[in-house]
Amino acid sequence: MQFSSSLLENAVNEFSRLPGIGKKTALRLVLHLLKTEPEKVVGFSEAINKMRQEIQYCERCCNISDSRICSICGNPLRRQELICVVENIRDVIAIESTQQFSGTYHVLGGIISPLDGIGPDQLNIESLLARVVKENPDELIFALNPNIQGDTTIYYIQKKLTPTHPNLRVTTIARGIAFGGELEYADEMTLARSLSNRLPVESYINK
Amino acid sequence: MQFSSSLLENAVNEFSRLPGIGKKTALRLVLHLLKTEPEKVVGFSEAINKMRQEIQYCERCCNISDSRICSICGNPLRRQELICVVENIRDVIAIESTQQFSGTYHVLGGIISPLDGIGPDQLNIESLLARVVKENPDELIFALNPNIQGDTTIYYIQKKLTPTHPNLRVTTIARGIAFGGELEYADEMTLARSLSNRLPVESYINK
Repeated sequence: MQFSSSLLENAVNEFSRLPGIGKKTALRLVLHLLKTEPEKVVGFSEAINKMRQEIQYCERCCNISDSRICSICGNPLRRQELICVVENIRDVIAIESTQQFSGTYHVLGGIISPLDGIGPDQLNIESLLARVVKENPDELIFALNPNIQGDTTIYYIQKKLTPTHPNLRVTTIARGIAFGGELEYADEMTLARSLSNRLPVESYINK
Repeated sequence: MQFSSSLLENAVNEFSRLPGIGKKTALRLVLHLLKTEPEKVVGFSEAINKMRQEIQYCERCCNISDSRICSICGNPLRRQELICVVENIRDVIAIESTQQFSGTYHVLGGIISPLDGIGPDQLNIESLLARVVKENPDELIFALNPNIQGDTTIYYIQKKLTPTHPNLRVTTIARGIAFGGELEYADEMTLARSLSNRLPVESYINK
């Protein structure tokens, strides 16, 4: 792509560094900003700068936060003794959108994946173990993506916790056929698991 | 979507105002920037601000430029007596990418479209007419998208020019079956036009 302006070229190059944004999309976005009022463009770039510089991570659950303790941990109406362990902030947002969970979270910041060079030390696992010791919660719910890495992470953390907290309830979100999914297209593992973890119809209907 | 941080929420909202960017994509982009080093994020926002504040439009051809006259108009190797009229800067970039055009451009900034409330006065048509009077070019090539609005724009400009410049050569880029296209899927209008504007095989092969 040849540009008649280096200012335009720089802006397009910056945008095209973002994931999933190619040169053509970047140009479309930049030309849109060029038509936008200058104040709004300043607002756009300031919001991004401010976010990058001022954002903090909650000292308790490692969630993204505006202050030392995030709004979920600081909310007295949430059940503090119930901890949902998730991979990242996107999962927190997904679960919050269901409006069905009243506990708190712990954001691992990733999952154990030796192939990608990610071990337990790079994740917020130590802080989770320390939190369990300190707060002595009732239950730990693992809401990790259902794959080998997710299962490894659950196994690793549970193995660390069992000796010191034998009575801690550790659960994982149900895996099975998604609502609206079709049996014939489900993989064998999912179908086998959803058979062995079958539910009484009453409990299903009451949900 | 519920966010635990208003800084994050603001940044996501700003991104999702861009065309074609929904909330989920915006969140993905913002979380990517959050993992990027702060200096790079500052570089990103500065490139955008600088572009918005310092960019100029070429006084001659209305193309985006870093200075009063754009690099294409200022290039003595380009044929100044050949003017290609295009709708916007994206078309300039597309034609420049072919490396087959050695003339200059005139960017209209849109096309006449009464349904969208865009009349000749909102476009850089006056400056084109003034430029023709001043520079007395050899040829005007219209490279507008082949639709009703494009044709209306060509008709309007030509009608303005004919009385004063009866001998000015006014052409339009060829319309026909695209390279790699299939006859059976071409619409009737394109197929009919490409039949009536058929070319001698020699000229086709020599190209």
